Amino acid sequence: MKNLLLFVFIILGLISCKQQEKPIDIENQNNQIVIGQLDSIYSEILDESRELWIHIPESAKDSLSYKTTYPVIYLLDGPSNFNSVTGIIEHLSGNMIVPEMIIIGIANTNRSLDLTPTKVDIDVISGDSIQYPSGGGNKFLDFIEKELIPYVEKTYPTTTYKTFVGHSFGGLSVINALVNRKELFNNYVAIDPSLWWDNRAFLNIADSILSTNKFDNKALYVGVANTMESDMDIDKVQNDNIPDTYFTVHIKSILQFVNSLDTKKDNGLLFEWKYYENDDHGSVPFITEYDAFRFLFSWYKLNGVNNFYSEKSTLNAKEIIKIISSHYANISDRFGYQVIPPEKYINSIGKGFMHNNMPEKAYSLLNLNIKNYPKSVNVFESMGDYYLFQSDTLNAIKEFKNGLKIREKATLRGKLEKLED
Amino acid sequence: MKNLLLFVFIILGLISCKQQEKPIDIENQNNQIVIGQLDSIYSEILDESRELWIHIPESAKDSLSYKTTYPVIYLLDGPSNFNSVTGIIEHLSGNMIVPEMIIIGIANTNRSLDLTPTKVDIDVISGDSIQYPSGGGNKFLDFIEKELIPYVEKTYPTTTYKTFVGHSFGGLSVINALVNRKELFNNYVAIDPSLWWDNRAFLNIADSILSTNKFDNKALYVGVANTMESDMDIDKVQNDNIPDTYFTVHIKSILQFVNSLDTKKDNGLLFEWKYYENDDHGSVPFITEYDAFRFLFSWYKLNGVNNFYSEKSTLNAKEIIKIISSHYANISDRFGYQVIPPEKYINSIGKGFMHNNMPEKAYSLLNLNIKNYPKSVNVFESMGDYYLFQSDTLNAIKEFKNGLKIREKATLRGKLEKLED
Repeated sequence: MKNLLLFVFIILGLISCKQQEKPIDIENQNNQIVIGQLDSIYSEILDESRELWIHIPESAKDSLSYKTTYPVIYLLDGPSNFNSVTGIIEHLSGNMIVPEMIIIGIANTNRSLDLTPTKVDIDVISGDSIQYPSGGGNKFLDFIEKELIPYVEKTYPTTTYKTFVGHSFGGLSVINALVNRKELFNNYVAIDPSLWWDNRAFLNIADSILSTNKFDNKALYVGVANTMESDMDIDKVQNDNIPDTYFTVHIKSILQFVNSLDTKKDNGLLFEWKYYENDDHGSVPFITEYDAFRFLFSWYKLNGVNNFYSEKSTLNAKEIIKIISSHYANISDRFGYQVIPPEKYINSIGKGFMHNNMPEKAYSLLNLNIKNYPKSVNVFESMGDYYLFQSDTLNAIKEFKNGLKIREKATLRGKLEKLED
Repeated sequence: MKNLLLFVFIILGLISCKQQEKPIDIENQNNQIVIGQLDSIYSEILDESRELWIHIPESAKDSLSYKTTYPVIYLLDGPSNFNSVTGIIEHLSGNMIVPEMIIIGIANTNRSLDLTPTKVDIDVISGDSIQYPSGGGNKFLDFIEKELIPYVEKTYPTTTYKTFVGHSFGGLSVINALVNRKELFNNYVAIDPSLWWDNRAFLNIADSILSTNKFDNKALYVGVANTMESDMDIDKVQNDNIPDTYFTVHIKSILQFVNSLDTKKDNGLLFEWKYYENDDHGSVPFITEYDAFRFLFSWYKLNGVNNFYSEKSTLNAKEIIKIISSHYANISDRFGYQVIPPEKYINSIGKGFMHNNMPEKAYSLLNLNIKNYPKSVNVFESMGDYYLFQSDTLNAIKEFKNGLKIREKATLRGKLEKLED
């Protein structure tokens, strides 16, 4: 009889839920819509101060009873990518495709110096001298390793799970970190990396390290832009008789790298790359970031939840709990620390069962939340809602009272008073 | 000899440019990273106040000499989509793939009432009564037409070119606006629209109007999510023997609509749709919005700019100016008002020629900017830079002075003083 609500639940569920939560912050005084906060760090290694663009998930402010911690994304060229990446992560995490994450955008001071692994004085194609500084890449990675990461982990609610994202010269830095400091990050995203650098000297070193070393539990995604003249294509450009020019050397170098990496099946690296024919060097970061995060966290989403609600489903409550537990055990393995099924997510599945006349399964899920989050007022409120839905007023009152023992909550108090009237 | 800079220009150009501009706002007092501002409007029609989430392009603050105006995106379920859509638009417009746009996110009060075109009391699949209000869709479109759009056009620097975006019930509203009020918007984006509504009654009306009416200069993009059980696929679900269930009726209705629309080739509507196999109803908005904006503005980008710099290019300065002029004449036709080539964009192409030893073409582009923006200090600064690059100090001084006649600018004054030392 209440089955009709299923569809409404599916269709309105996420939206109305997100709507209430307002995934981004409203700074009330000025009515501004805020997605982050500036911070800065003084680096002894670089002998200068660095601006940081910080995004903390909104849920960090909700956690009254539990200190939630989050994996971290370190983002090069921070300011120009910050709005994109926060938008992508808020959206994907709101749909349980990736975890909620803290984003640390690193602003540049001397970009070409910091993001190139070696010093180069002569442009290999023209033979002319190069007018910008280079070769500070390892010092910059020292800064990230010895100053930035410790500062971030001391200051913000982080876990140890980290992703490193860079574009162009920044992509070079990402690959440098992967091959020379693989313990620093779990995931690496290199967006149209400038592997032509230093006449491919760094490319060849990286390629060799990726052949001889192991990269278990590490993942790399590479996005490749279309930077060719319009009479060229991705097959033709790889022919040996196509000379290095400013219009070929960039993509040729990247393709050499990814094709070679595709053959190194036993180095343990989880690797994927994609060519974006309709994107140039400037436009490719956005879609690469989106695809990269879906690839890097492809094990994060619990698939088949929709099927739980199907009348055809033969799973009982115990089996569903087992599927969920084993999924989060796998996630915990990946992260390297224990991850408990998120309270709101389990609550939404439990409420889904409730609205679909599957009370036994609803009870099991809501009860799992009570076990996992015994100090949360909301888990008792949901259990009370469940009993109310079953027209079991006595137990509903009992659960609402259990919730209010933890802390006062106006909506919950209202529900209780209505029942006791 | 200066050719070596080309590659640096291509590779660093956009990034460093965006970096300086900081595409999103820093509210200095609190160091907050701000992407928008709350506003509200009292609606006589709805008899209530509505919260609006407003994003204005950063460049609106730059325009000291020229009042820039922008096309507008009206976004349903505003709060939950605001971060995504601002991120997408900032990125795509920063790469000249779409124009900079104002975004108006409309917050909900009574979502199901406002976003459904007809009142429905009985759930067609279960036969039970529906527990939520519905049927206020036309009143809500009245509000948008008679109150919201006039308010926005009075308050913000808008042009008349408008795009309407909605998801789920919001997608239903978008299609309702397209078929019944097509003059309201130029572009329509319907994300996984709930066309099962009212036992497909509205779908059939919409389909019929789309058969008999003309929709020249209107465009529609529809994104379709995978909302099926895992043993179903998009071909199978369209078989006549597959009954309507909560897991089939949503996608079946949308596919019926888009397949029928695909056959109506002569109604003038520019139409595209895509099925997103790996996205469910909740996750599909993001990628649909991204693909939709690229489709809707596929005529906006000036293609082949990279080729301008090629040594193989046979185009002379005059021909390049002609290509650019004709491109913006076409854009003006699409928008329905005159669009002048953007100052910064033409400047970046001109500077590209300069760094590539193509002085005649550089001069033509920078001179085009002086003609189009005679009150901008920057166009004279760039022309001065050009002369300086040609080692023509006298003319450089002259152009820098022309710039300073318009207004004082510290960096420009510095350049002039250095030359006059």
